[in-house]
Amino acid sequence: MTEQYRILIQCNDEKGLVYKVSSIFFHRNLNILSNSEFVDKTHNKFFMRSVVSGEADMKALRDELMSVLPNDAILEVIAPRKKRIVLMATKESHALGDILIRYEAGELDAIIVGVVANYNHLEPLVSKFDIPFYTVSHVGLDRDAHESKVLECLAGLGEIDIIVLAKYMRILTPRFVETYNDRIINIHHSFLPAFVGANPYKQAYERGVKIIGATAHFVNNHLDEGPIIAQDVLHIDHAQGWEEMQRRGRDSEKIVLSKALKLALEDRIFVHNNRTVIF
Amino acid sequence: MTEQYRILIQCNDEKGLVYKVSSIFFHRNLNILSNSEFVDKTHNKFFMRSVVSGEADMKALRDELMSVLPNDAILEVIAPRKKRIVLMATKESHALGDILIRYEAGELDAIIVGVVANYNHLEPLVSKFDIPFYTVSHVGLDRDAHESKVLECLAGLGEIDIIVLAKYMRILTPRFVETYNDRIINIHHSFLPAFVGANPYKQAYERGVKIIGATAHFVNNHLDEGPIIAQDVLHIDHAQGWEEMQRRGRDSEKIVLSKALKLALEDRIFVHNNRTVIF
Amino acid sequence: MTEQYRILIQCNDEKGLVYKVSSIFFHRNLNILSNSEFVDKTHNKFFMRSVVSGEADMKALRDELMSVLPNDAILEVIAPRKKRIVLMATKESHALGDILIRYEAGELDAIIVGVVANYNHLEPLVSKFDIPFYTVSHVGLDRDAHESKVLECLAGLGEIDIIVLAKYMRILTPRFVETYNDRIINIHHSFLPAFVGANPYKQAYERGVKIIGATAHFVNNHLDEGPIIAQDVLHIDHAQGWEEMQRRGRDSEKIVLSKALKLALEDRIFVHNNRTVIF
Amino acid sequence: MTEQYRILIQCNDEKGLVYKVSSIFFHRNLNILSNSEFVDKTHNKFFMRSVVSGEADMKALRDELMSVLPNDAILEVIAPRKKRIVLMATKESHALGDILIRYEAGELDAIIVGVVANYNHLEPLVSKFDIPFYTVSHVGLDRDAHESKVLECLAGLGEIDIIVLAKYMRILTPRFVETYNDRIINIHHSFLPAFVGANPYKQAYERGVKIIGATAHFVNNHLDEGPIIAQDVLHIDHAQGWEEMQRRGRDSEKIVLSKALKLALEDRIFVHNNRTVIF
Repeated sequence: MTEQYRILIQCNDEKGLVYKVSSIFFHRNLNILSNSEFVDKTHNKFFMRSVVSGEADMKALRDELMSVLPNDAILEVIAPRKKRIVLMATKESHALGDILIRYEAGELDAIIVGVVANYNHLEPLVSKFDIPFYTVSHVGLDRDAHESKVLECLAGLGEIDIIVLAKYMRILTPRFVETYNDRIINIHHSFLPAFVGANPYKQAYERGVKIIGATAHFVNNHLDEGPIIAQDVLHIDHAQGWEEMQRRGRDSEKIVLSKALKLALEDRIFVHNNRTVIF
Repeated sequence: MTEQYRILIQCNDEKGLVYKVSSIFFHRNLNILSNSEFVDKTHNKFFMRSVVSGEADMKALRDELMSVLPNDAILEVIAPRKKRIVLMATKESHALGDILIRYEAGELDAIIVGVVANYNHLEPLVSKFDIPFYTVSHVGLDRDAHESKVLECLAGLGEIDIIVLAKYMRILTPRFVETYNDRIINIHHSFLPAFVGANPYKQAYERGVKIIGATAHFVNNHLDEGPIIAQDVLHIDHAQGWEEMQRRGRDSEKIVLSKALKLALEDRIFVHNNRTVIF
Repeated sequence: MTEQYRILIQCNDEKGLVYKVSSIFFHRNLNILSNSEFVDKTHNKFFMRSVVSGEADMKALRDELMSVLPNDAILEVIAPRKKRIVLMATKESHALGDILIRYEAGELDAIIVGVVANYNHLEPLVSKFDIPFYTVSHVGLDRDAHESKVLECLAGLGEIDIIVLAKYMRILTPRFVETYNDRIINIHHSFLPAFVGANPYKQAYERGVKIIGATAHFVNNHLDEGPIIAQDVLHIDHAQGWEEMQRRGRDSEKIVLSKALKLALEDRIFVHNNRTVIF
Repeated sequence: MTEQYRILIQCNDEKGLVYKVSSIFFHRNLNILSNSEFVDKTHNKFFMRSVVSGEADMKALRDELMSVLPNDAILEVIAPRKKRIVLMATKESHALGDILIRYEAGELDAIIVGVVANYNHLEPLVSKFDIPFYTVSHVGLDRDAHESKVLECLAGLGEIDIIVLAKYMRILTPRFVETYNDRIINIHHSFLPAFVGANPYKQAYERGVKIIGATAHFVNNHLDEGPIIAQDVLHIDHAQGWEEMQRRGRDSEKIVLSKALKLALEDRIFVHNNRTVIF
């Protein structure tokens, strides 16, 4: 039976990598549907993403590939399946709503296993789409206690491939980030690294910038400093106050976040040295 | 004889300002060719730029306008003329060259009275356009001593309306900035306020951003923090090293700087609270 | 009681218009909150949109304004209220869904009185939002017969201020357009005037363009040729087939359509000579 | 001696192409510096551009590559050298000037062997850069006679790799196009395929578009319909008359043309079915 496989390779660059890998595909009768390579010359790193079709013994393919790759190689051989994702939110609906509408249209190759929020404002919206909604209020709890309850809630949702912070306005602790390492995508309502921190639209207004933006990134332990996946900008002028900038910025935020989610669902993102390579 | 005048008003907002000003234009038989107003509600400031045609006693017009405006009003009544500008540069030619080509084509309503640089690399280019070139080398001089020589050179060039820092890679001292207060336009090779300081392209590369930009701004005593006039951005991806980002960024830099210069030549920029209002 | 009013003026340009209008505002004790003017010199047309606050006898204000304006003046004095809108769709959900999410968030100053579609595919989505959904199938009917049924359906929905064609894939006849003249906003999945007509993404792919776009416009009797309200574009390259271009284009389509709708709801659009003036 | 070679392959797609080509590189001890592949599934065409370093017998490398490629293969093995280019212009200086400034800065891997124009307006500018300027006036000549003189002038300039039409405002005949087939790059002052033909800015103004653009393309026998290399756009609004749109558009024109020229100088452009594949 013909299947498709995504092969992701990240390793030190050396002569002959393309030849050795494509040789394995060829002799195993796997057809290359698409192929992307990149060498980061600054760090001497080789990145390759191939989509192949054919009949493969995944374990044997994996072993053979490893046998020709340098020792440091990170290799993934993926038979695509619907990834299990969780959305986290607070009160704003634009980023969450954009994902829900795409989900309903069948645009996302994923199962949304639940939405977790620290307020219940978005429960009516989420419930329309027959997706479980979990309110984990932070009221009266310190950060750690609240997060423990969130982690408990997430633990009850089964395996999670990706957590999407769709305007979840709480800071995550290192414990949380480590639990879901490289699996958390955040939308920051700013053109990072400008205006890190609270109310970036107000900061942007006061600085008098003529362009604002939004940034989707993986979350690491340094707030707003994880690897950037996608960014977009829009032009503004003096006539927009910060609330208007915020309102306009929402369109950028939701489009950029959905774009980053799609890239992750299609296994197109490599992370190296806090930077992303995206095919 | 029919002339055109630019009237620029900046003052506290109060009821009736448009009425009072337009009433004066009407009764003095001045025809409004274009009219722009804006109220900054955060700071309760009113901004108005009118271009009128007719026959005006500029002194009398000015006095009558002042008589109806609030006490804090900053008023300019301008009979357009070619502004006298000086370009300052170091070694890179793209921003300077863009201005020279526009100048040669008659696109700029200005006289370039000279180019001042701390190297002589650009002298061959500038000389082609019959514009005086002054090399004021910084070699062997401390910052103050070098700047004194630059100021001396500028003082010899007669009245200067605008100084354009076309990739002049030296930091200006407060003395310089105060001498030409609100008359210095700089192009910063970054999307301010991100990547302030040295080699912003390298910083941007290391941060892994997906968009880079350029910022034209007035210079004040805080490096890279003056009022922003214009910004532009371009999309990049993982495949561009910082030198390539720098190369591509030059196109943004030159276009943004020339745009800011044109706005200044047309008296379209107000500055208030470190922000610009541009009509 | 203090109210806000939007005053829209479109007339032949002549000296003193700003003075005469602002004089009326001043003497009626109306405070100008925002004011925009533009003179189309090609056609000698003056456009003005003011938002004023105060206590106004709308009839008297209207009469006094008309008394100082040229004979051809088109004047609107509007006390803002929620406009009544109808959405029309076919099978695609992205543009419709974007409006529904904004509506649910209270972002639109409007009441959606119903959604009319020629298929029932979107009924499940629309029903989630408690908005009446009307399927008017075209199957087995000629264009006129189908449209008669649509018009009948619309007639039953009460007063309609704006009809939004959110990817309604049927051509409207002149009868329909005249019934809702200047009140129909369409999103065209192309950067008009390129690729007018069927499957613009396929046309764009075959022409090998590097940028695609979307256009929101009022509908007139010439298909795809009404006054343009808003446009946006996105960069593509050779790697996108037309289906992928279509998928990406949906983000532009929905953002541009929602932007145009917002402008219309805020009475910011003038139409003259098949062009729009937007404040 | 280590050299760099650019290998460009265009052929019917079949299984094993990447393997066969990379195998030849590997066994000839050529190091892949960068590698790009693309399969146009609509037309079943495979495109590959590799930059390799090492010591190569170019003839033998070429022969061995041909021996493993399908019969329809178009193969180029290029040892990079400065390409010889000719610029053609009329009266406008912005596109020409942008290339001259880049040339002077050493940014272009090319030799400008001359500028040919149908007016002498730009001679003073070009002469500054010590580049031969040839005026071939069309006055008093029919199209064929004038073009014969232009072709004669070009013939005298030696081998020409690329002709850049930097706002050359004359229509070329099929004879001219065939003589320099696939070697002529034009900048069209419009977002093709909108506003084909004369004065596109006026057409755009009258249509009331909110975005204008510029298109760099190879020239074929159908005016404005050759393969598109690069496009860019800028946002406008109702306030710009067509002359102002033209003025602003010049910035897009020059940047897009210079970008296309750079891509051509680096052998990054494939042409197939009137579309370009660009790596």
